[in-house]
Amino acid sequence: METLLQSKAHGGMQGVYRHHSVSTGTAMTFALYLPPGEGPFPLVWWLSGLTCTHVNVMEKGEYRRACASLGLALIAPDTSPRGDGVPDDAEGAFDFGLGAGFYVDATQAPWSQHYKMWSYVTRELPALALAQFPLDAARQSIMGHSMGGHGALTVGLRHPGRFKAISAFAPIVAPSQVPWGQKAFGHYFGEEKALWRAHDSVSLVEDGARVDALMVEQGSADPYLAEQLRPHLLQAACAKAGQQLTVTVREGYDHGYNFVSTFIDEQLGWHAARLRE
Amino acid sequence: METLLQSKAHGGMQGVYRHHSVSTGTAMTFALYLPPGEGPFPLVWWLSGLTCTHVNVMEKGEYRRACASLGLALIAPDTSPRGDGVPDDAEGAFDFGLGAGFYVDATQAPWSQHYKMWSYVTRELPALALAQFPLDAARQSIMGHSMGGHGALTVGLRHPGRFKAISAFAPIVAPSQVPWGQKAFGHYFGEEKALWRAHDSVSLVEDGARVDALMVEQGSADPYLAEQLRPHLLQAACAKAGQQLTVTVREGYDHGYNFVSTFIDEQLGWHAARLRE
Repeated sequence: METLLQSKAHGGMQGVYRHHSVSTGTAMTFALYLPPGEGPFPLVWWLSGLTCTHVNVMEKGEYRRACASLGLALIAPDTSPRGDGVPDDAEGAFDFGLGAGFYVDATQAPWSQHYKMWSYVTRELPALALAQFPLDAARQSIMGHSMGGHGALTVGLRHPGRFKAISAFAPIVAPSQVPWGQKAFGHYFGEEKALWRAHDSVSLVEDGARVDALMVEQGSADPYLAEQLRPHLLQAACAKAGQQLTVTVREGYDHGYNFVSTFIDEQLGWHAARLRE
Repeated sequence: METLLQSKAHGGMQGVYRHHSVSTGTAMTFALYLPPGEGPFPLVWWLSGLTCTHVNVMEKGEYRRACASLGLALIAPDTSPRGDGVPDDAEGAFDFGLGAGFYVDATQAPWSQHYKMWSYVTRELPALALAQFPLDAARQSIMGHSMGGHGALTVGLRHPGRFKAISAFAPIVAPSQVPWGQKAFGHYFGEEKALWRAHDSVSLVEDGARVDALMVEQGSADPYLAEQLRPHLLQAACAKAGQQLTVTVREGYDHGYNFVSTFIDEQLGWHAARLRE
């Protein structure tokens, strides 16, 4: 593992690290913030949205002040494999391929060779990070934004014992029912509909997934709200299933990091309360 | 004036605007954050460092939370003219030309045609911003980072009635005595040494400039500290002249925005206290 950056911030240390991933067969880069102190620290996973790398939340998320104050580490992986030989959307569209791994293990060629983000974020990177840094495996939580909100919800719903809290800003809650998800799953999974269900938060709740602490925040001025995000689908599924879910609508906020950075302190505080239990 | 972006953040509005500048003869872009409420708001000027545009502090400065809480507007201009016909460093170096206007009006060809950042940030942009937005001309302060710290100090020292507080993160305090400044002033001013003195904070204090509230913060792990920044030169000049100056060294912090964003809340609080007086 190679250290690309270490920079003191809010009393702790913002790092950026690169390593060879067995899952994706590529180099992968991630950001990790450690709060002041010795640790082991509770670990918050941040999964990013379409077009993002580890950099977006690191530069625009404004999470370090709250993490330092609450004693939380925060790790931010990349959103797809990258590099020579990694295929991309045929037209270079932003919503598929590079920067758009959707946190799944693709089963269809040519995607199946490198697009193994599920294995990467649920197994390989946790093992690496927990071994290399002063982090507490027993106190983890997960959050994300947009496509990364989808990632946080699906990873969280499928690992109910691992994460003390699961939350998302403006997540894609039902990829099987919206254009971004249909395009991505159509390429990554083809017609294997069982895989679509296993990576769709609404389907997972319908199929019996249950977790303790689930929260979604959504800006009312988000241009993707009606077509791509549709949080009411998750609300309906959770209501029907008796799964707790808090959805908070933030009036006038859009889809970007100004929305995220405004409310991340509070959302991290909600995580911290559950990580202390 | 054209609106490029308006995005709700921390209850206020982050905007980005573009206009034709008479000073530089180019289009110029700036960022302006307005806190919640109706105004008129006290206005903090943020001048950025080498290589920056209005974007760097907007994305990485983490100023909005404090500005919203303190009721401060913050404006961030670009650091140089840009566009067709604007000359750059012959080798494209980062420390001169594009992104490195040094907040001066160049007198030497070919720089003198467009590099008029002093006129832009001290006259043209203030007039435009105060006319177009709910800002209070009687309550302004100025801060900046690195080359922009130099800008904030020199603009502030030469406008003692205009700014209630003047501060800088890791500023170039004596451009006439360090490589970055000598290169820039050599091109922009040639041998006109009176202009060098008029744009050098140490020289300005030596030559009689006096202001009420002057503050510098400096990271101890800043790689530019010894060669380019040299805050002790300003401390010595202020001590000799009887000019108040607070210099705070922040242990372990580097030159980047992780340093700035860690301490900007506190520095903005110091401004707010003086803007309320």
